Amino acid sequence: MPGDNNEPGYASPWAGANFIPLQPEHNSLRERRTWLELKRLAASVPEAGIHFQKVQLQRRHKDMKDAHGNFHGAFAENPWFKDLFDDFRKLDVSELAPEYDAGCQFTTVCINTSIYLPWLLGQCARNGVKFQRARLESVEEARNLSHTGTPAGFIINATGLGSRSLGGVVDTKMLPARGQTVLVQNTIPAMMMFSGTNDGPVEEIYMMQRAVGGGTILGGTYELGNWNTTPDPNIATRIIQRVVDTCPEVAEGKGIKGIRVIRHGVGLRPYREGGVRIEKESIGQDTWIVHNYGHDSWGYLGSYGCAQEVLELIEGHSVNQSQSGVSKARL
Amino acid sequence: MPGDNNEPGYASPWAGANFIPLQPEHNSLRERRTWLELKRLAASVPEAGIHFQKVQLQRRHKDMKDAHGNFHGAFAENPWFKDLFDDFRKLDVSELAPEYDAGCQFTTVCINTSIYLPWLLGQCARNGVKFQRARLESVEEARNLSHTGTPAGFIINATGLGSRSLGGVVDTKMLPARGQTVLVQNTIPAMMMFSGTNDGPVEEIYMMQRAVGGGTILGGTYELGNWNTTPDPNIATRIIQRVVDTCPEVAEGKGIKGIRVIRHGVGLRPYREGGVRIEKESIGQDTWIVHNYGHDSWGYLGSYGCAQEVLELIEGHSVNQSQSGVSKARL
Amino acid sequence: MPGDNNEPGYASPWAGANFIPLQPEHNSLRERRTWLELKRLAASVPEAGIHFQKVQLQRRHKDMKDAHGNFHGAFAENPWFKDLFDDFRKLDVSELAPEYDAGCQFTTVCINTSIYLPWLLGQCARNGVKFQRARLESVEEARNLSHTGTPAGFIINATGLGSRSLGGVVDTKMLPARGQTVLVQNTIPAMMMFSGTNDGPVEEIYMMQRAVGGGTILGGTYELGNWNTTPDPNIATRIIQRVVDTCPEVAEGKGIKGIRVIRHGVGLRPYREGGVRIEKESIGQDTWIVHNYGHDSWGYLGSYGCAQEVLELIEGHSVNQSQSGVSKARL
Amino acid sequence: MPGDNNEPGYASPWAGANFIPLQPEHNSLRERRTWLELKRLAASVPEAGIHFQKVQLQRRHKDMKDAHGNFHGAFAENPWFKDLFDDFRKLDVSELAPEYDAGCQFTTVCINTSIYLPWLLGQCARNGVKFQRARLESVEEARNLSHTGTPAGFIINATGLGSRSLGGVVDTKMLPARGQTVLVQNTIPAMMMFSGTNDGPVEEIYMMQRAVGGGTILGGTYELGNWNTTPDPNIATRIIQRVVDTCPEVAEGKGIKGIRVIRHGVGLRPYREGGVRIEKESIGQDTWIVHNYGHDSWGYLGSYGCAQEVLELIEGHSVNQSQSGVSKARL
Repeated sequence: MPGDNNEPGYASPWAGANFIPLQPEHNSLRERRTWLELKRLAASVPEAGIHFQKVQLQRRHKDMKDAHGNFHGAFAENPWFKDLFDDFRKLDVSELAPEYDAGCQFTTVCINTSIYLPWLLGQCARNGVKFQRARLESVEEARNLSHTGTPAGFIINATGLGSRSLGGVVDTKMLPARGQTVLVQNTIPAMMMFSGTNDGPVEEIYMMQRAVGGGTILGGTYELGNWNTTPDPNIATRIIQRVVDTCPEVAEGKGIKGIRVIRHGVGLRPYREGGVRIEKESIGQDTWIVHNYGHDSWGYLGSYGCAQEVLELIEGHSVNQSQSGVSKARL
Repeated sequence: MPGDNNEPGYASPWAGANFIPLQPEHNSLRERRTWLELKRLAASVPEAGIHFQKVQLQRRHKDMKDAHGNFHGAFAENPWFKDLFDDFRKLDVSELAPEYDAGCQFTTVCINTSIYLPWLLGQCARNGVKFQRARLESVEEARNLSHTGTPAGFIINATGLGSRSLGGVVDTKMLPARGQTVLVQNTIPAMMMFSGTNDGPVEEIYMMQRAVGGGTILGGTYELGNWNTTPDPNIATRIIQRVVDTCPEVAEGKGIKGIRVIRHGVGLRPYREGGVRIEKESIGQDTWIVHNYGHDSWGYLGSYGCAQEVLELIEGHSVNQSQSGVSKARL
Repeated sequence: MPGDNNEPGYASPWAGANFIPLQPEHNSLRERRTWLELKRLAASVPEAGIHFQKVQLQRRHKDMKDAHGNFHGAFAENPWFKDLFDDFRKLDVSELAPEYDAGCQFTTVCINTSIYLPWLLGQCARNGVKFQRARLESVEEARNLSHTGTPAGFIINATGLGSRSLGGVVDTKMLPARGQTVLVQNTIPAMMMFSGTNDGPVEEIYMMQRAVGGGTILGGTYELGNWNTTPDPNIATRIIQRVVDTCPEVAEGKGIKGIRVIRHGVGLRPYREGGVRIEKESIGQDTWIVHNYGHDSWGYLGSYGCAQEVLELIEGHSVNQSQSGVSKARL
Repeated sequence: MPGDNNEPGYASPWAGANFIPLQPEHNSLRERRTWLELKRLAASVPEAGIHFQKVQLQRRHKDMKDAHGNFHGAFAENPWFKDLFDDFRKLDVSELAPEYDAGCQFTTVCINTSIYLPWLLGQCARNGVKFQRARLESVEEARNLSHTGTPAGFIINATGLGSRSLGGVVDTKMLPARGQTVLVQNTIPAMMMFSGTNDGPVEEIYMMQRAVGGGTILGGTYELGNWNTTPDPNIATRIIQRVVDTCPEVAEGKGIKGIRVIRHGVGLRPYREGGVRIEKESIGQDTWIVHNYGHDSWGYLGSYGCAQEVLELIEGHSVNQSQSGVSKARL
């Protein structure tokens, strides 16, 4: 739950977070649907903790070969999303950081997760959702936790990395993709993401400034299979050094001493081999589980799109299930 | 800022928090004003993370002699606030826990600080507040941080315990009053507060269930002058044991094994010898500092009442200062 | 290295530790060899931090069916080690804790790992070992780290759980077997180990008092595949409650409030499917790796026996390798 | 106790530690006595974890004015200790770091506290000391904790910062002098200490390599009155940056990315206004307390000299007290 920020495996508060499409065009529906809502929130709901911010994406040719799949979406030469953002334009060579070969720029959003996640929960409260905390051995136990007093007709399994060990799911395709970040007081001229670094294959470079005083996130890493929940001080140093080298103005020209760290962080992204799982599964007795997990780095990006599909899976049953409550299990 | 929950001395997220009047009647204006607003939020703004909850206050005669001042308000035999709450009534002897001599019951509110603090910040955002993070050596530096571009006419000093070391304030009457708590998954039938324990003068017993799935806070301690920000495991054990002894039903009759801990916590309350300081101070050049710090255990309780006085101090200047911005320093 | 106690996966400091044979008789050579040395240290080298202590082992019939293999050694009805200890005797029914069916008692040793590990390192220093710290991507890199200036003839791979990811080893049979413990100030009349608990299959009950003021270790858990390095407060509560229930005198009859916790701890035991790996492997160029890892719960128990086999593997080569240094890699 | 490294206020494990005289000549007896023993250990007892290491002390004229007292000893132009070390010599201007005006060099010792503290305890064990762990409200309680069964004739109060709150002592002249350090894998050509930095009055620069693979300590800070036991990431960055700027070879010319951090640390030095307190105090009933606390940065430096005075205070009583045990209280 928002506020339980020290739980290993609850990755959401540690995310940047932002909206940079990662999927190829033919698979972009979830992102398109999400963008509509995030844009609306940034424009009209300041208390949600989302604001507009310009982003620059820069790529090196050499990174494109080995990059994990998602990156081909974001760093494509001619991305489908050029039409999604009004002010999309290619970067001029003069605007590129040293070593980087090409790039683009557009205005998207950055989310202050410390505000947005509590806000989301608050919206649920406003809409009548009832919350319970429990530790379930098996997802089926949620069937009897509906506040209605009758068994739940639908259980939405949004347990993320927990789906690896949760009884009744035990999805061995799930693995942590560890991400380490640094939250700093410094402000930045624009969000920046780069296709690769010189510090090895698991290290990344990006920065984004959270809305409403949330500080600036410097990143990062993508370490598949690494469960270590403690920030590694040497990774932290490299993250900061890369940012200072690439964008000295972030540190006001003072080098790493000019970076004012608020906190080091680690999140375990809920990676799933083969991608997100959104599907329904009968567990008998008029109860269905609707799975929605395995979002990896892509949780905020696909959030509203995925939720809409969950809804569609439920509504496809609505004739028969109209009397039943819905439980959402969160490990 | 909300989300920076590991800063020693940012006590607000660690508070319970609730509304139990602590002041004597002649000094109750701030609490009365606060109650109006908290009641409104609990009734009409579910997304603020505040809900109504019944509380039972129980006292032992022997605790009343040595209790620190505030307790005389809450545990008074015939408290002024009996008229503030519609359903106030004295507890029957049969309702008292063993060893406790008297008590009362009424419906007040419990605040889920993980939701309420972000919500507050969101309301500021909605009302146009601009946020900046900076580390100030001296409160006067805030003068030049106004987003308006012109020097601030008013600086509101709400730096809590930070006022002990912040340049330009350095109030040596400030001390930490350490509070340790345990956040658990268990639910409780009612909020409970007791006047004392058998575990020594710095240990307390209380419990309250936060709104919208925020878990239940078990407390606690009040350790004046103790700066230790690490939860003490033996204090934690005693907190849990006291709760289980006094209200076995919280653990569903399973003893301490029935308590499901989410997190241990420590907050350093901003105690001030002589009480809260709310006053204005000229620092020359048409800039005033308005101090509002030293709230000890009483931050949420007096919050709206104190804020209103801050406003009155500012408005008393409004004729001359109408062109100036207002900066709020938070260490 | 001793003192780096916050590294996930360096399990040795978190061990109890003691000497209770776990292997069946036909496989007991390593334990017999180890016992000779631990007994000598306890008797004659007080500065090693090892002392003699009586142990009671108690078993329930029902635990014997499902116990993991090692337990059949320790809790056997007629164990081979009855002749290893001078004062071995079966427990009388009157000496058994409630629910336990049989048991035995003898005098063995308990190791204060906070003293013994630094002492071991000191003995290496006294014998001319040179220490270097480095982070190796691959075990072969140790070849060029010999202080002699010439390539190492032997690299001893004692990297424990690190062998799962260390380049050139990458042994996927390695998994963490998480163990959580509580270190307390309380003293105990005797070391105690029980065959099982009522708190589920991963929880254990044992206690042992470390030498020279090292406190008493209460345990524990055996959680295969769990990488979480943070103490779970609910497991901690159950560990303490089990000890207090089974041996109330540990808490001087005061219940859990009588337990004075020094520290909660987690170690990740280096489990290996199929057991310890001790073997040599040529990596060409006159260099051999001698593997010695995968000791699970059994590191101290088998230590000197395993080391002797490592030595034998090296000495079998001594004619040809006499000019070469020996490097020991520790991840 | 050694191994309890997470106790706030147990500063010894966090010290560098080394031997650089800080006192003026007329007050140097304790240091001279200590040097004899530390030198002996480094030369003849490798398992104690102490080795010889060259040190360079460099000073800036401007730092000499405002430095706290101790520094005048170490950075004196013509120090008394030039005769204590065989190879003492002034540094040539060509050997000085930029901005530094003068300096000297000699061979002293560096202590690996992770090995030395357990070794010390082991030596006590070898000499028959009995250890007990207890939490005392008042120092007088130690009187009845002697293992001899009779009341202790002498209680040695070596509780450091604990003397601020320990009943029967409550010495309000005690304050924490917070020191933050970074332990790294890198090796250094020589120990280095500098008289000041450009990062403000509480920050220092020094480095020393611990014996037997203990890593290299980079420092530091001296923050009087700061109780914060959490490493500040920005201080850590400045410590590393200063070392890299002043001695680039420590990072092998790779800048801060070349520094391989093992751990960040904080110790609260037991500062005492007016200096160390070594004196005896009668508490009646044939029992004396011998105080030995308030060693600030100087604990290892003065250790054997102070212990000798404690012994002398006790021996002055030996005629009458010969039947009594000695208890040493450690909070």
